[in-house]
Amino acid sequence: MFITCLDMEGVVTPEIWIAFAEESGIPELRITTREEPDYDKLMKYRIDILRAHKLGIREIRETISRVDPLPGAKEFLHELRSFSQVIIVSDTFTQFVGPLMEKLDRPTLFCNELVIGEDGMITDYALRCAGTKLTTVQGLQHMGFDTIAAGDSLNDLGMLKASSLGVLFRSTEEIKKAHPELPNTDSYQELMALIKGKMGL
Amino acid sequence: MFITCLDMEGVVTPEIWIAFAEESGIPELRITTREEPDYDKLMKYRIDILRAHKLGIREIRETISRVDPLPGAKEFLHELRSFSQVIIVSDTFTQFVGPLMEKLDRPTLFCNELVIGEDGMITDYALRCAGTKLTTVQGLQHMGFDTIAAGDSLNDLGMLKASSLGVLFRSTEEIKKAHPELPNTDSYQELMALIKGKMGL
Repeated sequence: MFITCLDMEGVVTPEIWIAFAEESGIPELRITTREEPDYDKLMKYRIDILRAHKLGIREIRETISRVDPLPGAKEFLHELRSFSQVIIVSDTFTQFVGPLMEKLDRPTLFCNELVIGEDGMITDYALRCAGTKLTTVQGLQHMGFDTIAAGDSLNDLGMLKASSLGVLFRSTEEIKKAHPELPNTDSYQELMALIKGKMGL
Repeated sequence: MFITCLDMEGVVTPEIWIAFAEESGIPELRITTREEPDYDKLMKYRIDILRAHKLGIREIRETISRVDPLPGAKEFLHELRSFSQVIIVSDTFTQFVGPLMEKLDRPTLFCNELVIGEDGMITDYALRCAGTKLTTVQGLQHMGFDTIAAGDSLNDLGMLKASSLGVLFRSTEEIKKAHPELPNTDSYQELMALIKGKMGL
């Protein structure tokens, strides 16, 4: 029994921090793990900036509510969910992406959580588990699922390689070159064909 | 991080085989595990009856498409999905309940699969894993989730007891009496209040 696990940012939505930096007009928030590989340091830096700008969860959600899914993502998910169970597996935070998930008709999302103070300010974050994406597909496999996965980034490689079919979707030339064993595509149509092919549909 | 696992039949939909027996006018299909505790024997008996009535997956889906979710289930799920990830954990079969899940706006469903021949007739069934419901909540816990669960039957007890909050929903007097440690309710409103209470909302 197949289940499809999709990375969120880059696959069905834009990069949230970059979109948020643009919507909020705070360019310092454009920094990602490419510039600061220490994720914990990066998150603490982001939390400090949000606090300095007096942006609590309410304002952040309001800003993110103006971010839209990638063009074609909603239709892609709609078709995919008509024949496969789908989990969006992401290192984003529940409290950020509620409005975006609503725009995608609420697919199930396995991600992380922010710790929010009584004043609505973000004080910390909590990863759901170590190695979130790989651990998630392994958990699904333990439940008897055969996993299919798609993602674009380094942190997706674990779940892509552990799956029956792992597809690099709109990934970088560098990652595609380093992983010729993984099929890659930039189009939803091709990704859909790969998934259907694997499922024998 | 919480996730809510709901049994399907008796919680958000009617008992599928009973509803199907009524819709199709085949009373022999009303037999459940209460009358035939050997599940494998029961499923083979059902498959034989369907074949005798020349009911393939297409006709079965067509019949089940006239079955509706329980009154209030859609609204309950809609509210629940606005603040919690939700998985419907069921021993039903993917191919049966597609139309019913559509009526519920496609919540994620972890269930089992039927084996269907080229002629569209059901030839066999495949359980996703042993002890499906308990194994599922354990898998979710392994991924870092704190599980909340609701169900009505004996086969739900494992997942209810293994969860931080396990609620008997519209269960039998016998089961409720035998499990005073589990809260029970017959109303969606009360179930929602119990879930929100556990999540601190």
